[in-house]
Amino acid sequence: MDYDTPLFFHVMSYATDADRDVIDMVSGNPDWGSPPGIAEGLHEYADLGGEDFQYPPSEGLVELREEIAARRDVDVSQVVVTAGGGEANYLAMARAMEREAGDEFILTDPVYPYYPGKTTMLDAKQRFVATAEDGTLDPDDVREAASEDTAGIVVNSPNNPTGAVYDEESMRELVEIAEEYDALLVSDEVYDHFDFSGKFTSALTFDSDHRVVTNSFSKSLAITGFRVGYAIFPPDLVDVAKTRHMLTNVAGSRPSQYAVLHALRETTREYYEENRRLLESRIETFTDALDAAGADYTTPDGAFYVMARFPDFPGTLSNVEKLIDEAGVAGMPGEAFGSSRDDWVRFALVTPRAEEAAERLADYFSDR
Amino acid sequence: MDYDTPLFFHVMSYATDADRDVIDMVSGNPDWGSPPGIAEGLHEYADLGGEDFQYPPSEGLVELREEIAARRDVDVSQVVVTAGGGEANYLAMARAMEREAGDEFILTDPVYPYYPGKTTMLDAKQRFVATAEDGTLDPDDVREAASEDTAGIVVNSPNNPTGAVYDEESMRELVEIAEEYDALLVSDEVYDHFDFSGKFTSALTFDSDHRVVTNSFSKSLAITGFRVGYAIFPPDLVDVAKTRHMLTNVAGSRPSQYAVLHALRETTREYYEENRRLLESRIETFTDALDAAGADYTTPDGAFYVMARFPDFPGTLSNVEKLIDEAGVAGMPGEAFGSSRDDWVRFALVTPRAEEAAERLADYFSDR
Repeated sequence: MDYDTPLFFHVMSYATDADRDVIDMVSGNPDWGSPPGIAEGLHEYADLGGEDFQYPPSEGLVELREEIAARRDVDVSQVVVTAGGGEANYLAMARAMEREAGDEFILTDPVYPYYPGKTTMLDAKQRFVATAEDGTLDPDDVREAASEDTAGIVVNSPNNPTGAVYDEESMRELVEIAEEYDALLVSDEVYDHFDFSGKFTSALTFDSDHRVVTNSFSKSLAITGFRVGYAIFPPDLVDVAKTRHMLTNVAGSRPSQYAVLHALRETTREYYEENRRLLESRIETFTDALDAAGADYTTPDGAFYVMARFPDFPGTLSNVEKLIDEAGVAGMPGEAFGSSRDDWVRFALVTPRAEEAAERLADYFSDR
Repeated sequence: MDYDTPLFFHVMSYATDADRDVIDMVSGNPDWGSPPGIAEGLHEYADLGGEDFQYPPSEGLVELREEIAARRDVDVSQVVVTAGGGEANYLAMARAMEREAGDEFILTDPVYPYYPGKTTMLDAKQRFVATAEDGTLDPDDVREAASEDTAGIVVNSPNNPTGAVYDEESMRELVEIAEEYDALLVSDEVYDHFDFSGKFTSALTFDSDHRVVTNSFSKSLAITGFRVGYAIFPPDLVDVAKTRHMLTNVAGSRPSQYAVLHALRETTREYYEENRRLLESRIETFTDALDAAGADYTTPDGAFYVMARFPDFPGTLSNVEKLIDEAGVAGMPGEAFGSSRDDWVRFALVTPRAEEAAERLADYFSDR
C-alpha cells in the first residue's frame, strides 16, 4: 500500500476537467467558513510589520504555545507548533524511529494514506491491523500485531475515512500497548472538534511517556491552507523533535500563527457547535438518499466522511470516474485507503450540495 | 562540528537578559522593513476567506510558481515553493541522498551551521573544505575532496558568514565537479539580492541535471517569519522532492504565499537597491570603526555580515558574553561556524545602530 498522491490528484483533476457540473466530495476542505477572528487577526498582523514580520521562535509563538498548553492541560515546553497536522505527524513518526526501539509502524486498515507515505519516507516497515466494518479498532488486534520491532502505533480518532471514534477504554489500552512494547502511540486527533458521539477521548487523558498527540487548526477553524498544527510530546522526547522541526522548516509561518492565536481567543463555543450540527444534518440527509440508492454506508460518529458501497459497483478508480461523468458526483476510490475498503467510495461532506449529490447518486443507481 | 542551536539561542537570551543596553547583531533579521506589497497582500488575502483559506497546491500557488519560473527562466514544473530557504535546503539535501550515489556532503569551513545539522539529521557524512581568509572557495579544493562517496556539495553565495561572492568561473567549476562525481550541487542563493560586487552568478546559469538552486524571500523582502522560499530542481529529480515536501508539510502557508506573490508584482527595483546601499554604507562605517578598534575584519562582497578579530580576544562564547556585558554589543562566536574561524566574531549589520556598536567596540578595546 503505497502513498497515493497521484490517485488523489488524478480524481481532483478528472472532476475539474469533466464536461459537466460535478459536485466535489473529494477533498476534506471545510466549506462552512472560518470564524471572523482569522481575518481580523491577519489584518491586525499585516499592520504590525517590522520585527513582527521576522522569525517567530522555532517551536512557535510563545503565546500560541501557552494557549495550546492551557487548553490541553500540559506543560508549555511539551508543545511544538507545526506546519499543520502533516508536519506534526511527520515529527512524531520520525521521533518514534529515532528512539531506536523498533522500525515498524502499526497502522490501521483502512488507513489515512499519508501514514504509509510517511512510513516509507522514514525507511520504516509497516503492519496493518484491520478495523471492524464500522471502523472501530480492537486493541487486542493491535496487541497481537505489536512486537519488539514496533516503533510506533498510529491512530486517528475521529477517523478519516471511517468516521469511527475510539472510546475511552480503547485509547487507554492503546497507550498501555505502546508502553508494554516500548513503542510510541501517535494519536492524530485533528477531527476532535467533530465528534458527534460524545465519546471522543484524547490520548492525553492517559499520562504516559509513550504517546504523542498531534492536532491542527486546519479543520476546527476551517483554514487548511494556513498550516498551523501542533504536537504534544512527552517531556523526554520533545527536544529532539524540536531540533528536527528547526532543521526542516526553521519555524512555522508567523502570519498564520498570529491569526490562529487571535481566532482562538475570539471564537466562541457556538462556532464549533454550529459546524458540528451542520455536518450532522448533512450526514442525515446524505445517508437517507443513499438508502434510496440501495447503498450500504457508514454512519460516522465523527469527522467529515461517509463511505458508501453500491450494488455491483466496487470503489475502483474507473468506477469513481464513471460517477463523475455519469452522475456528476466526485468521491475518493476506497482503494486509496487500503485493501479492506476497495468496494467502497468515500464522500467528504464539505459541500452545501451534499443532499443534491445524494439525490444524483440515487437517480443514477435506480436507472442502472 | 555539530549543529549548534543551543549556542545561537544561548547568545540571544544572554543578550536579552543582560543588565544593560545591548545592540543585537546576532541574528540575520532584516530591520529595513518589508515593501508595502506584503502588508497589502495580506490585507487583500484576509478578505477572501472561504476556499481561498484552504489548501494551496502542495508545490505552491500556481501563479507564484509561474512568477518564480519566469524570473529564473526555468520551467514551472521545476519549481517547488517551500517553507523558506530552510525547507528548500532540506529537500535538496534529502534528494541528494535519495539518489543513492554517495552518502557524504562536501561543506565549506566556515559553514552556515544548518548544513551540518541537516547532514546529521539525514544520516549522511560530511567533509569540510577550507575557504581562503576572505571566504573564497577554490574549486580545486572541492575537486580534491570529491569522491564516489559524494552525494552533494552545498555552497552558499553570497556567503553567510564570510560575505564572499563566488565568481562565474567558480560556480561553473562547482557544477562540473558535481557532474564529474555524479553528485548534486546545492547552491543556496538566499542573499542574491545583496551582492555588492556585481559578480554574483547563480548556479542556474549553467544548465545541468546535477544542481539544485535554493532561494527564499525571507531576506529580499524582509519577511523571515513568513516562511516562503523555493527550490529549483532538474526535471528528473523534482517529482521525488515534491513528494517529500507533501509528506513533510502537505503544503506551504497560503497567506504567506499570497502576500509574497502580491509583493513580487508590486515591488520596484528601487526597494532592493536602497537596501543594498543601506547595507554598504553600514558596512563602511562599521569597518571604519573596527579599524579604530585595532581589529582585523572581513569586507563582505555580499550578504549582511562582518567578521571581526580583536587582538588577544578569540571569538569564544565566553568572550562574546564579555562583549555583551562590558561593551553592550552582541555578536555570534566564530566557533559556531566551524573550527577555522574560532578567533572571530560575526556581526550582523541588521540594526540602525551598527555605527554605535562599532564605536562601543572601539572604546572597549582601546580601554583594555
